[in-house]
Amino acid sequence: MANWQQRSTFVDRRSFWCYWRVFSDHLLLLSVWFLSYAVAFKQVVSELAGEHAANLIFHKMDIRDKAELEKLFASTKFDAVIHFAGLKAVGESVQKPLMYYDNNVVGTLTLLEVMAAHGCKKIVFSSSATVYGWPKVVPCTEDFPLSAANPYGRTKLMIEDIFRDIYASDSGWKMIMLRYFNPVGAHPSGYIGEDSLGIPNNLMPFVQQVAVGRLPALKIFRTDYSTKDGTGVQDYIHVSDLANGHMAALKKLSDPEIGCEVYNLGTGRGTSVLEMVAAFEKASRKEIPLVIAGRRPGDAEVVYASTAKSERELNWKLEKAKMNTRMRILIEFGKNVLVLEQLLFLVFVSKLKCDAAIKPDAWAHPWTTYERLNYSHGDIQSKKKGRCSTINMWYFPHDCNSENGALMNILED
Amino acid sequence: MANWQQRSTFVDRRSFWCYWRVFSDHLLLLSVWFLSYAVAFKQVVSELAGEHAANLIFHKMDIRDKAELEKLFASTKFDAVIHFAGLKAVGESVQKPLMYYDNNVVGTLTLLEVMAAHGCKKIVFSSSATVYGWPKVVPCTEDFPLSAANPYGRTKLMIEDIFRDIYASDSGWKMIMLRYFNPVGAHPSGYIGEDSLGIPNNLMPFVQQVAVGRLPALKIFRTDYSTKDGTGVQDYIHVSDLANGHMAALKKLSDPEIGCEVYNLGTGRGTSVLEMVAAFEKASRKEIPLVIAGRRPGDAEVVYASTAKSERELNWKLEKAKMNTRMRILIEFGKNVLVLEQLLFLVFVSKLKCDAAIKPDAWAHPWTTYERLNYSHGDIQSKKKGRCSTINMWYFPHDCNSENGALMNILED
Repeated sequence: MANWQQRSTFVDRRSFWCYWRVFSDHLLLLSVWFLSYAVAFKQVVSELAGEHAANLIFHKMDIRDKAELEKLFASTKFDAVIHFAGLKAVGESVQKPLMYYDNNVVGTLTLLEVMAAHGCKKIVFSSSATVYGWPKVVPCTEDFPLSAANPYGRTKLMIEDIFRDIYASDSGWKMIMLRYFNPVGAHPSGYIGEDSLGIPNNLMPFVQQVAVGRLPALKIFRTDYSTKDGTGVQDYIHVSDLANGHMAALKKLSDPEIGCEVYNLGTGRGTSVLEMVAAFEKASRKEIPLVIAGRRPGDAEVVYASTAKSERELNWKLEKAKMNTRMRILIEFGKNVLVLEQLLFLVFVSKLKCDAAIKPDAWAHPWTTYERLNYSHGDIQSKKKGRCSTINMWYFPHDCNSENGALMNILED
Repeated sequence: MANWQQRSTFVDRRSFWCYWRVFSDHLLLLSVWFLSYAVAFKQVVSELAGEHAANLIFHKMDIRDKAELEKLFASTKFDAVIHFAGLKAVGESVQKPLMYYDNNVVGTLTLLEVMAAHGCKKIVFSSSATVYGWPKVVPCTEDFPLSAANPYGRTKLMIEDIFRDIYASDSGWKMIMLRYFNPVGAHPSGYIGEDSLGIPNNLMPFVQQVAVGRLPALKIFRTDYSTKDGTGVQDYIHVSDLANGHMAALKKLSDPEIGCEVYNLGTGRGTSVLEMVAAFEKASRKEIPLVIAGRRPGDAEVVYASTAKSERELNWKLEKAKMNTRMRILIEFGKNVLVLEQLLFLVFVSKLKCDAAIKPDAWAHPWTTYERLNYSHGDIQSKKKGRCSTINMWYFPHDCNSENGALMNILED
């Protein structure tokens, strides 16, 4: 803990500041993890940042703690906020809706109030394709009617509505909501990725765990859809592409025309469950055993994004890296992360992608799962019980477009 | 303030406890108002409560202040909560959406969390017919599709969704949401009613202000609807009937079958603007000058309630008191309240209605408007700026159905 604080002082204020602010239980546990393990989150990030590690400032804070946020904003003039600090497990949201509404909605409202009070009115927010519900047609365009089928989805929908209302009341805001489709993959280093706790809800983590032998077989819930092979079709976007979308959105915030906008971050392609499995088998050279399980309610048949608006207005494009590389990385990550299981914790992060126009690029990813965190650290638990907000913020200096000598990629590919 | 606290100690713990908890700026101002004026809110309520005034306990608190709420719930075991603590001015919500989301949504979430933590899982909540949006047919039944056209409406819709999600996660809750149509009228004493600040948004306060000479003429926005006289048709329910609906809902919470339910509180009758004006003119023997104004966007053509479910399941019926009496009261109130204008504050409260089955009846009303509160009391403003939640809670003892000797009507008709 002491180290954490001291590290913050190694700041070169002349260069790009990257504030990676990760707060509360979740990352309080993380900090314990840092002290306990050689390869740990902050260290991983710092290591990947290389010579720029000293520019990273970590803050632990609960975004619902208005007084603490106030202090932070009073001490530093932020130009923009990328708000990833959401809980995102659908099943957990059904079981613990108050926790989800509190963390996601109250957290966001508190953040927005403090931002407004300090004149920081640029924000990029992680929304989700879940707000399209069960679309009647595909691809999903941003003007589709919205709905939600579970508390997690409703928190996203509520926050989107709140953003629109705030902008309608004060056009000084610049707000971009990014609707993620299904993020998959990991950082190319293999150090940081997603590792679901228990049985994963999503396809890729499930396949990954089968591939590394932690689960015996992949459950397939529907084979009778009217799709080419009968399984559900989703839009899987690699976290690297998602990361680039955030950089593009951050750049877009300096567009004088931007107001409150929403953009899809997907590939524009639907991939069936069986196609995904086949690609994974090919990349990993392992067979993924399948089990046809009973129907799971609520799975949509075919969902994929229209990327036209994002490509046109954000000037954002998918990378062309081979799927095989991605798959390999995923598997490598799946192996690496096993050593970290004692704390049952996973972070899903991606590489930075250098963008010619808006160096420096910086990236952080919210795909943390923190169901069933191992609260074996009693002192932390008692102090911070029930606090599980996280927030990552990036400080974007005014002169970032003028000079690049001091600029950096935090995570290099 | 000292008096306020001391008063709390005059509690007869053997009798029905009525906790009227009104908090924050809003009612902190009220308390100043109490000290400044002979006829003031707390005094009015206490006066109307007569011999039972000592059973009233007032607490000032912000429902978003979790620590304070925790203390309250730790000190008293509440059986149920009636949650009126919402801001409700549509126009204000468009201008200050964060204030509305913070007060209404964050306030409710905080309350629900504290209730859950203390095992108090019975709640009656003030929702609104606004969640029906622009219904395609009438009367509106509780299973209509829901929508919202402004931040105020969205806070109601969000809270309804949150209630349903909480109940789905824990069937130990008993939750009733009451969808108010257009409440009108005042307490029969004429002491407590509604007095809009500035130009009222709603028909009845507008008519009332024209009747007492504070506004020159009533603006009518549409005369070309396909209704009988071309003006919009709404469902106007007297606050007394609304109050009875709350009593019936409170009783319903002890029904073992009740889970999470929603009930309309309306009359089931549509009344056009011109009909309302004619009734008012007849009752007041005053002419209400009319002005045909330009169209106001967003006014629904015809909205009225189906009361079938409420009547059947809540055993709730409209009172049969004559409209003329109501009108007279409204005008009396309109006169009385003028003396209170210095603080530009109004409370809209109704009588208690005795119900044979569930004595005691108790009632409190959330129809407070606190736009443009006169913040001339600098010390209070600086201490509590931005805090404007209110909450009224009623304590309902376990033995309330067994004995009625100690029971009371707080406000007698």
